[in-house]
Amino acid sequence: MLKKYLLSPGPTPVPEEVLLEMAKPMIHHRTAEFSEIFEDVRKKIKPLFGTKNDILILAGSGTAGMEAAISNTMNPGDKILVVNAGKFGKRWIDIAKSFNIEVDSIELEWGRSVTAAQVEEKLISNPEIKGVFVQASETSTTVLHPIKEIAEIVNLRDNTIFVVDGITSVGVYETEMDEWGIDILVTGSQKAFMLPPGLAFVALSEKAWKFVEKSSTPKFYLDLQKERKAQTQNTTAYTPAVSLIIGLRKALGIMEKEGLQNVYKRHYICAEATRAAVKALGFQLLAKDLPSNAATGIIMPENFDGQAFVKSMREENGITFAGGQNHLKGKIVRISHLGYHDFFDTIIAISAFEMGIKKAGLDIEMGKGVAAAEEFMLEYL
Amino acid sequence: MLKKYLLSPGPTPVPEEVLLEMAKPMIHHRTAEFSEIFEDVRKKIKPLFGTKNDILILAGSGTAGMEAAISNTMNPGDKILVVNAGKFGKRWIDIAKSFNIEVDSIELEWGRSVTAAQVEEKLISNPEIKGVFVQASETSTTVLHPIKEIAEIVNLRDNTIFVVDGITSVGVYETEMDEWGIDILVTGSQKAFMLPPGLAFVALSEKAWKFVEKSSTPKFYLDLQKERKAQTQNTTAYTPAVSLIIGLRKALGIMEKEGLQNVYKRHYICAEATRAAVKALGFQLLAKDLPSNAATGIIMPENFDGQAFVKSMREENGITFAGGQNHLKGKIVRISHLGYHDFFDTIIAISAFEMGIKKAGLDIEMGKGVAAAEEFMLEYL
Repeated sequence: MLKKYLLSPGPTPVPEEVLLEMAKPMIHHRTAEFSEIFEDVRKKIKPLFGTKNDILILAGSGTAGMEAAISNTMNPGDKILVVNAGKFGKRWIDIAKSFNIEVDSIELEWGRSVTAAQVEEKLISNPEIKGVFVQASETSTTVLHPIKEIAEIVNLRDNTIFVVDGITSVGVYETEMDEWGIDILVTGSQKAFMLPPGLAFVALSEKAWKFVEKSSTPKFYLDLQKERKAQTQNTTAYTPAVSLIIGLRKALGIMEKEGLQNVYKRHYICAEATRAAVKALGFQLLAKDLPSNAATGIIMPENFDGQAFVKSMREENGITFAGGQNHLKGKIVRISHLGYHDFFDTIIAISAFEMGIKKAGLDIEMGKGVAAAEEFMLEYL
Repeated sequence: MLKKYLLSPGPTPVPEEVLLEMAKPMIHHRTAEFSEIFEDVRKKIKPLFGTKNDILILAGSGTAGMEAAISNTMNPGDKILVVNAGKFGKRWIDIAKSFNIEVDSIELEWGRSVTAAQVEEKLISNPEIKGVFVQASETSTTVLHPIKEIAEIVNLRDNTIFVVDGITSVGVYETEMDEWGIDILVTGSQKAFMLPPGLAFVALSEKAWKFVEKSSTPKFYLDLQKERKAQTQNTTAYTPAVSLIIGLRKALGIMEKEGLQNVYKRHYICAEATRAAVKALGFQLLAKDLPSNAATGIIMPENFDGQAFVKSMREENGITFAGGQNHLKGKIVRISHLGYHDFFDTIIAISAFEMGIKKAGLDIEMGKGVAAAEEFMLEYL
């Protein structure tokens, strides 16, 4: 037997009761039975976004939600500002360019967080910017960006919307879309929502809907006006991913029962305990400014083959960490705290990290990371 | 207890062993474990399409696959020919218009099949047509179109591709994409594939790929070149719908074990038995020319409320039939033969139809439909 532990920042583990819920017999989507589930889900998901707006649920992965945020609000030739601080920041740029949207960007070293002042500066020198696009939590670098502060800057401008990829922040951090003034908030199912991949979520403010009305960028499958019309009637424009939506109701029920504040606190504790362990073991965090509670990126020593480490941990020990992406391939290890993950999953992660790197030849004091995590966690136990 | 029977043309029942396969713990998609599953699925699905081409698997519903077929091959201003013989024919038109593609169409009464001669005539008078778009089986009317014959006509033209929505034909009928000369074949997971909705499949011929190279229509999430590059390496451009792909492997294994010829024959027998029952009961089929083995559409008598009938069968008797769509709402009843559906599911469907319409006040001879179905099925039992 090789017992398996999924400790990567998405897909994340799915609770057994959610798996079993999705294993129930299929139902038809144009029925009162489905509409009732859909209505319930649409209502229960709102507190996670902190919004009264409709949250549109699409069959697709998070990238579909990101594309929808651009293709529904912008026109060819429009200019947007992207915070490019990692793989998913870069994705905003790639999508925008595919739709002939002009991009100005704030280019940051991977591991850095943007500041609201940097955004403000760009907006002052480029008054034609129609949208500011950022990740709340940049999964590739395990870094947080100061969303609330940036929102304050963007909200001063009537002609600019603030678009946030919340794929690894919604469900991890308290998010107040309406209060902070986020105009579009996107997320996916396979992170804090404790579901398999296959659903994207997009919520839009009234300000964003005004941009939608003026957008002529071609779209059909991801046409949010059509979805809004259907979903406010508790149905969908096209066939929905029925089983995932049924699982979503269960997952939202689990979160509701735990209490959202407790969900966020659990993520914080697991993340902070991991950061304490990393430091105790003498490693550096990749996140220089604001580390995210979604996952922790650890810089590996030079000449250490991080890719081989991640591979052997997975294949020989059943532990799925994530490595680095793009130019950080092999150079970092990422440990997730997302979703269906509790204190002792963090202990497993740290212990596996300790044993794994010792086995890989690094000279560390075994148990030191676990001890630091335990010290930190103790008061919350 | 109200035992439930899903007899609508999608979503269709999912076999218990597929449901349980999808209920296994989540795995990461950037791993050898997932790539091995994906490679297996990519190989095993080919006989269903009758192609050596790569079949791209997308996270989305069938409509996403239809959009991809248009947005990846056509340019704004190009002209296409659509066979508009039902709700899904109309969808080709709507998608094309969203992307500023010009549409010529063959408009047919719902229930009619197109002929190859009608397509030929249009192509002769409109030599600029770049693509012919049709449903193999039009789910809204339970009608078949003569794909093989149309392919012969379109194949004579170097500058025109033949695009087929096979959403309720792949897995129902033997389909020989390469031999017949289909350039793009699209399908979805929730019909004959015996899976929940959430996957779209798109296969392209070499001729179609040449159109793709020349298409400048904006796209990102549904960019098939990007997907081809990834999927030929047994991975995906964006996060795949992992659990559905795992279920797909199981479902394909079930079909392979039964033998594809037997799968097709089973659909034929259940459909033909249903048609025999409908006629024995004195009803008319909606399909005037070529009825599809995916589902059978039955014309209900005038003044009969088909919508109320479908609703009460579902809510009071656990039987999910489908009604008519658009202007046929309330006027027809559709019974599915798709996917995980065997002889005795057909008997249930016919018996339920008999009892239901009797209860609704129509004067029929009870058991006459079942008897006709039994007579037909007997030799195959």
